[in-house]
Amino acid sequence: MDYIKMPMDIEKKSFEIIGEEMGEHDFSEREISIVKRVIHTTADFEYKDLLYIREGSIDRALEVLKNGTTIYTDTNMALTGINKKALKELNCKVECFVSREDIAKEAKERKITRSMAAVEKAVEEGVQFFVFGNAPTALYRLKELIIEGKADAKFIVGAPIGFVGAAESKKEIEKLDLPLITVRGRKGGSTVAAAIVNALMYMIIERE
Amino acid sequence: MDYIKMPMDIEKKSFEIIGEEMGEHDFSEREISIVKRVIHTTADFEYKDLLYIREGSIDRALEVLKNGTTIYTDTNMALTGINKKALKELNCKVECFVSREDIAKEAKERKITRSMAAVEKAVEEGVQFFVFGNAPTALYRLKELIIEGKADAKFIVGAPIGFVGAAESKKEIEKLDLPLITVRGRKGGSTVAAAIVNALMYMIIERE
Repeated sequence: MDYIKMPMDIEKKSFEIIGEEMGEHDFSEREISIVKRVIHTTADFEYKDLLYIREGSIDRALEVLKNGTTIYTDTNMALTGINKKALKELNCKVECFVSREDIAKEAKERKITRSMAAVEKAVEEGVQFFVFGNAPTALYRLKELIIEGKADAKFIVGAPIGFVGAAESKKEIEKLDLPLITVRGRKGGSTVAAAIVNALMYMIIERE
Repeated sequence: MDYIKMPMDIEKKSFEIIGEEMGEHDFSEREISIVKRVIHTTADFEYKDLLYIREGSIDRALEVLKNGTTIYTDTNMALTGINKKALKELNCKVECFVSREDIAKEAKERKITRSMAAVEKAVEEGVQFFVFGNAPTALYRLKELIIEGKADAKFIVGAPIGFVGAAESKKEIEKLDLPLITVRGRKGGSTVAAAIVNALMYMIIERE
């Protein structure tokens, strides 16, 4: 059987196909690199219309990344999908607390989701770069903490997926005057969230 | 802000919404539990038409799982997404070799993808339950090893995603007379692959 076996060739070819099939758009060069990476990750061109990249947000995200930040994410899958080599090169790291015993215990006691308890923990630790691929409740909780002046969020990826609260949670977070990238509607997810973060990192670093 | 904070309530409500919006279908009760879980994970109803569950495959998958098997997956994200509590209860485990140093080295030397080197390793170790969420090349390589009589595949989830080789790789694997579940076309991915495995495990075990 004959098939392409070089990973970077496969990625390059994929991006070409996406570009051809996507047709006309108004995205900037940096924006389109995010949009294409998300479509690459989902094989779903609908993301072209769902991604909301607030003006100025890419610059702010890159500033935070260049400072060597801790990225907080609400799912272990997004954490896994964020490129570790790129993180290391940028002196950044990524954390997710949802599976920790103490978080699970606290969530159970307070009858809240683990995602909420986990984002509270991230806020306590001074995280500035938040990435949500799953939990509307975490996004709601973060908004509350920002309004209360407790969270120092400098950039947010809001990509919870799902049928209960996801779309609404993203609408709510967009009301904040903050740099952010969201996926409107029900779609999104851990792979999409990770793809957005990777696309941002690849704007700064060179890849093999 | 008022929002549902109990995870199992959120999941239950989501499945109800999916059921309502999905409309008519010919899936059996067990099949529909897989379809719904994939839609739950993607917010994409197109999967209703893309999922191919070969007759008899669910029974075979459950047999293998009940024996306490090693699940091999081609991505760390799928590995992360497969429910660890359910695995433990079934005395199963999940492995992915793509990030291992020795695999990376071998792939580089032989100018093949890490995914190919990794699936060869899994075959060597006697894996019977294969789950692909990303790499067409791994699926092609597994097919070759099956034809050569080297791989003892008893069940395959074929859900590579993408624009180069993904759809073709799934067509190829479907030609084998083996129990399998595939996602036709370009779509699929790690979250979809993990959702299929979780849906299968949840047919056997009780969840909290």
